[in-house]
Formats: sequence, structure tokens, C-alpha cells
Amino acid sequence: MSAVKQFIPLFDRILVSRAVAAAKTKGGIMLPESSQKKLNEGVVVSCGPGAVDADGDVIPVSVSVGDKVLLPEYGGTKLNLDDEEYLLIRDSEILGKFVKVTSE
Amino acid sequence: MSAVKQFIPLFDRILVSRAVAAAKTKGGIMLPESSQKKLNEGVVVSCGPGAVDADGDVIPVSVSVGDKVLLPEYGGTKLNLDDEEYLLIRDSEILGKFVKVTSE
Amino acid sequence: MSAVKQFIPLFDRILVSRAVAAAKTKGGIMLPESSQKKLNEGVVVSCGPGAVDADGDVIPVSVSVGDKVLLPEYGGTKLNLDDEEYLLIRDSEILGKFVKVTSE
Amino acid sequence: MSAVKQFIPLFDRILVSRAVAAAKTKGGIMLPESSQKKLNEGVVVSCGPGAVDADGDVIPVSVSVGDKVLLPEYGGTKLNLDDEEYLLIRDSEILGKFVKVTSE
Amino acid sequence: MSAVKQFIPLFDRILVSRAVAAAKTKGGIMLPESSQKKLNEGVVVSCGPGAVDADGDVIPVSVSVGDKVLLPEYGGTKLNLDDEEYLLIRDSEILGKFVKVTSE
Amino acid sequence: MSAVKQFIPLFDRILVSRAVAAAKTKGGIMLPESSQKKLNEGVVVSCGPGAVDADGDVIPVSVSVGDKVLLPEYGGTKLNLDDEEYLLIRDSEILGKFVKVTSE
Amino acid sequence: MSAVKQFIPLFDRILVSRAVAAAKTKGGIMLPESSQKKLNEGVVVSCGPGAVDADGDVIPVSVSVGDKVLLPEYGGTKLNLDDEEYLLIRDSEILGKFVKVTSE
Repeated sequence: MSAVKQFIPLFDRILVSRAVAAAKTKGGIMLPESSQKKLNEGVVVSCGPGAVDADGDVIPVSVSVGDKVLLPEYGGTKLNLDDEEYLLIRDSEILGKFVKVTSE
Repeated sequence: MSAVKQFIPLFDRILVSRAVAAAKTKGGIMLPESSQKKLNEGVVVSCGPGAVDADGDVIPVSVSVGDKVLLPEYGGTKLNLDDEEYLLIRDSEILGKFVKVTSE
Repeated sequence: MSAVKQFIPLFDRILVSRAVAAAKTKGGIMLPESSQKKLNEGVVVSCGPGAVDADGDVIPVSVSVGDKVLLPEYGGTKLNLDDEEYLLIRDSEILGKFVKVTSE
Repeated sequence: MSAVKQFIPLFDRILVSRAVAAAKTKGGIMLPESSQKKLNEGVVVSCGPGAVDADGDVIPVSVSVGDKVLLPEYGGTKLNLDDEEYLLIRDSEILGKFVKVTSE
Repeated sequence: MSAVKQFIPLFDRILVSRAVAAAKTKGGIMLPESSQKKLNEGVVVSCGPGAVDADGDVIPVSVSVGDKVLLPEYGGTKLNLDDEEYLLIRDSEILGKFVKVTSE
Repeated sequence: MSAVKQFIPLFDRILVSRAVAAAKTKGGIMLPESSQKKLNEGVVVSCGPGAVDADGDVIPVSVSVGDKVLLPEYGGTKLNLDDEEYLLIRDSEILGKFVKVTSE
Repeated sequence: MSAVKQFIPLFDRILVSRAVAAAKTKGGIMLPESSQKKLNEGVVVSCGPGAVDADGDVIPVSVSVGDKVLLPEYGGTKLNLDDEEYLLIRDSEILGKFVKVTSE
């Protein structure tokens, strides 16, 4: 058995690992470093329990671990945990999520 | 079966695809590019579940997919999804909607 | 049967068509263009359902279609619909309304 | 029967006609125009139904038609109705009212 | 019987008549005008019914007529009623009150 | 019997008498005046009844007379009562209190 | 028996002792003073009872004594108690906590 240190956000904060733009175009051509800017997309890694409403009750967050989400241009806090870069952002700042819709 | 990535807005955000001004006048005369400015009208493509009120309950949004809406001059976030331009805007920022009224 | 596109404001917004000052004095003398400034009066053309209160319930607006209302000097959004100029304004920004009182 | 146009304020707005300072001193001496400045006193002419609280209920205003009130130095909106000057002000901005107290 | 005009504050406003610093020291020495600055103390002359809470209920004020109160350095509105100077101030701005405590 | 004037704070205000730094080090060496700056500690002398919540109910304060408290660097109002200097501060601005914990 | 002075934060304040960066690299090389900057991590030493909600009820804090927490870059109040440096910070400002997760 081995113990690992895991980070749990508080309140309605969500830990997101940001997707990095592909290093190559679909056709396989290497993209210059500069164009590999951070996409505004990411994957939810860990969720806080939720914000507290006016009566002290917890309002569950609206995303879950594994969700692919769209992040705003600005906002959130950059975090470096075990040499990995994450974004810690409020549930209410996440613009939306991508879901897979299968069609016949 | 094929799977497609669909974007679902969070909370009370609404995804709107903006109408583009007609390239010709009703009489068929070509309009210069400059005048083809974005109309403040658009069609609702996807809706978030709604904002959360003081007690943590969800308040449903007031528009539905397919509604023709009137957008404010400013506000919302421009989004580019699959090379299409959309506007992501709060339900409460949408000025109103156009409905068809049939008269005898 | 013919279908007409009608604009319905959202939330507590009210669509008002503004009264234009009379072109002549009561005595029939033509008034110069400059003095024909927009009165702060208008007629309610269309009403939103109402604002949403802290519990998510709709608060009905306090004016109805046809009401003659007094508008503030500033505020609201100018709208041009089918080449007619309107003012889209919040219910709570309207100063008051004129009612007819008949006296013996 | 004749119909008269009457102005009804909306929400918690109160229509007040301002008292004008006496043109003469108690001793009968004519006061110069400049000193006939508007008193901060006035009489309530018309009342709105009241503001709407967080639950959408109407909170009745605290003054009635005919009350003599004390107005703040600033605030309110000047209105000219039928060539008479009024002040339209929120119920909560009125400082207080004068009542007659009879003593033996 | 004679009728007197009495001023009643509205909402949570309190009318206070300010105490003036003694013209002489306890030893009877005349104090220069400049040192007779207004004390931050005063006596409550008249009280409003109280502020209105979020549900439209009146919250009674926390001082009564005759209370000796301590006023903040700034705040409130100076009023001149019948040539007497008063301070009209919100209940919540009054710092505290002085009460007499008798000890054996 | 003798009557004394006692100051009672209003709402959630707390009257604190500030502790002054010791004039000597533990070793008995006189400290220069400059270093005898006001500590951020003090003792509660008198408490208001408490703030009023959104429903008009009183929320009791969280300290009591005699508590040793830690004050923020800034905030509160300096009061001079009977030639003694006090700090009048809101309950919510007090950082915390010192309690005695006995260990075997 | 000996009595010790213990500091209890008020409301939703949390007392945190900050972790100091290791003076040596894992390989044992001494790190220069400058790089021993304060980590944004710390251990909870003492908790206030919690904030008070709109109805006057206490909302318990979301961390406990002994929790390892991640602090924001800015915010909180530096406190020196018995020559030890602490950070006094609001429960809602703490970004998250580290928990041990054991895996087979």
C-alpha cells in the first residue's frame, strides 16, 4: 500500500487540467511553439463540495470529474501541483461542457 | 453510429448563432461588405439549465432552442466552435424574442 | 391568413413607442423642427412577463399594453423594429402612468 | 362629465408639489427674488403603490396624499406636468413629515 | 387649544438635538468660542417607526425619545426646524447611548 | 447611592479598552516611549445587543465583557470617555479572543 | 497545573501556520536563503465557529485542526503570536486541502 497526497478544492472551486493545442496539424505538419497556445478547454480533475447558499445549505457543483469543459479567456488561479499545471476556477465561471451525442 | 461533440452551456448561459445581414437589398442590389454588419438578431442553439436562486433552486431559462432573439449591442462572449462563430450570453441579457402571430 | 413577426420583451422589459411633440401650437402655428423634441411620454406596446424574485417566482410588471407612461430623461435601449423607433426599458425605470379621471 | 389626465407614480415613487418661500417677511417687507428659494418642504400630491420586496410582495409607502413632508437637499426628479413643477422622489428618500399636534 | 407643527422622521431616521460644550470650565473660567465645538453627544427628540426588512416588516429603532446618545464624527443631515439646529441620522449610525447606573 | 453615566454601544458594536505595551522588558530595563506602541490586544468593556438580520431578528455578539481580544491593525472608532481612550469596533471586525487553557 | 493563553479566531476565520520550504534539495544540497520562500501551504492550527448566515445561524467552517491546506497568493492577516508567525484567513479564501489517499 502506498499513500498519495491528493488536492481537494473547497466550496465551489473546480480543479481543471488544461488541454494543450496539438503540436501538429491534422495533416501532420509541425506547428511552431508560439501557436501551441493553451486552448480554453480542459478536463475536470477534482471538484469542491459546492458553494453555501443564504441559508447555509450546500449547492452542489454542476460539473463532475472527467467532464470536458470550456473555460473563459480570463479568471481562475494557476496552480502547480507535483510539477503539473492546473487551473482552479469557480463552478459558476465555467462556460459550459462538451458532451458526446451519438447519432444513427 | 457516429459520435458528435456537442457544447452545453452551464447555469443561465445561452448559445446563440447570430444572423448575418442579407447580402442584397429586397430589390436584389448587392450590398457592400461593410454594410453586412452583424444584426443584433440570432437563433438559440443551446441552453443552460438555468441560474441558481438564493435557496439553491434552479430557475429555468426563458428561451428555448430555435427561438429567434434580439441581442443587446454589447455583452456576451464570442465563441468559435468547429469554425462557426457563436455568442454565449446570459438569459437575463437577451432583450426579447420574435414570435409569429397569424392574423385572419 | 398572414403571419406577422411580433417582438416580445423578456423578464421585466417594456416596449414603449414614444410620443412625438405636436408640430403645431394649439393655436395652429407651425413649430420649428428643433422644438419637436421627443416628449418623455409614450405608449406601452408590449410587456415582458416580469422579473424573477429571489425565490425564482415571476413578479408581474406594473404596466399594461396601451398604458400612457412617463419615461425618465435617460435609460432604456433604443430599438428600431420594422423602421419604427421604440424604447425598451425596465418596468422599474418607468416613472409613472397617466390615467383618465372623469369628474361630474 | 369631463375627463382629466392624472399622473400616478409607479412603485415607491411619490409626487410632491414643493412649497415656495413667502414673498414677504412676517412684517410684510417684500423679499428679493433670490431669497425666495425653494423650501425643502412640500405636499404629497400622488403616491405609487409601493416597492416590491424580495418575495415579490408590495411594501406600502409611508406617506399619504396631503401629507406635509420634508425633502432632502438633493435627489428626486423634477417634473413639469401641466405647467406645474413637481418633484418625483422615492418614499425612502423623504426625510420626514410634519403633523399637527394640538395642546390644551 | 393651540396646534403645533411637529416633525416626525420616516423609516429608521432619528432626530437628535446636539449638546453644546459648556461655555465655562468646571472652575468657572470662560472658554474661548473656538473650543465650544459641538460635542458628539445629543438627546433624541423624535424617532421614525423603523426600517423595513427584506420581507416588508418594520424593524423598530433601538433608541427612544429622551435617550442621551453618542454620535459619529461624520454622517447625518443637519436640519434647521423653527430656528433650532438638529441632526437627522439613521438609527444604525448612532454609536451608542449613555445610561445612568446607580451604585450603593 | 451615586449615579454613574455608563456607555452602551448599539447594534453589534463592542467597546474595547486597549492594552498598553509594558514600559519595561521582562528583565526590568526601561523601554523608550516610542516602543510603547499600542498593542493590538484589548479587553471588552461593553457590548451592544447585536446586529439585526434580514428578518429583523437580533444576532447576539460573539464576545462578552472581560474577554481578551485581538484587534485588527486598522478599523473601529477611537472614543474618549471620561478621559480614558477606548476603541469602538464591530463584533465582526474582532479577529479573535485569548482563552486560558490549563494543562496537567 | 499550568495555564496557557490560547488564541481562538472569531466567525469564519482560520489560524494557519505556514509551511517553510525545505532548506535543502532532496539530494541534500543547501538552498540559498532567497529560495526558501514561504510555500502557499500550511497546517490549520485553530478554527473559528463559522460565519453567520442571513437568518443568524452559524455555518460551520469547512476545515479542521490539523488539515494541510493550500493558501491563495494574497489575502489573510499576518499574526505574530508568542514569536511564531501565523496567517489568519477566512474559511472561504482557503483554496483547498490535501488528503492522503492510500492505493493497493
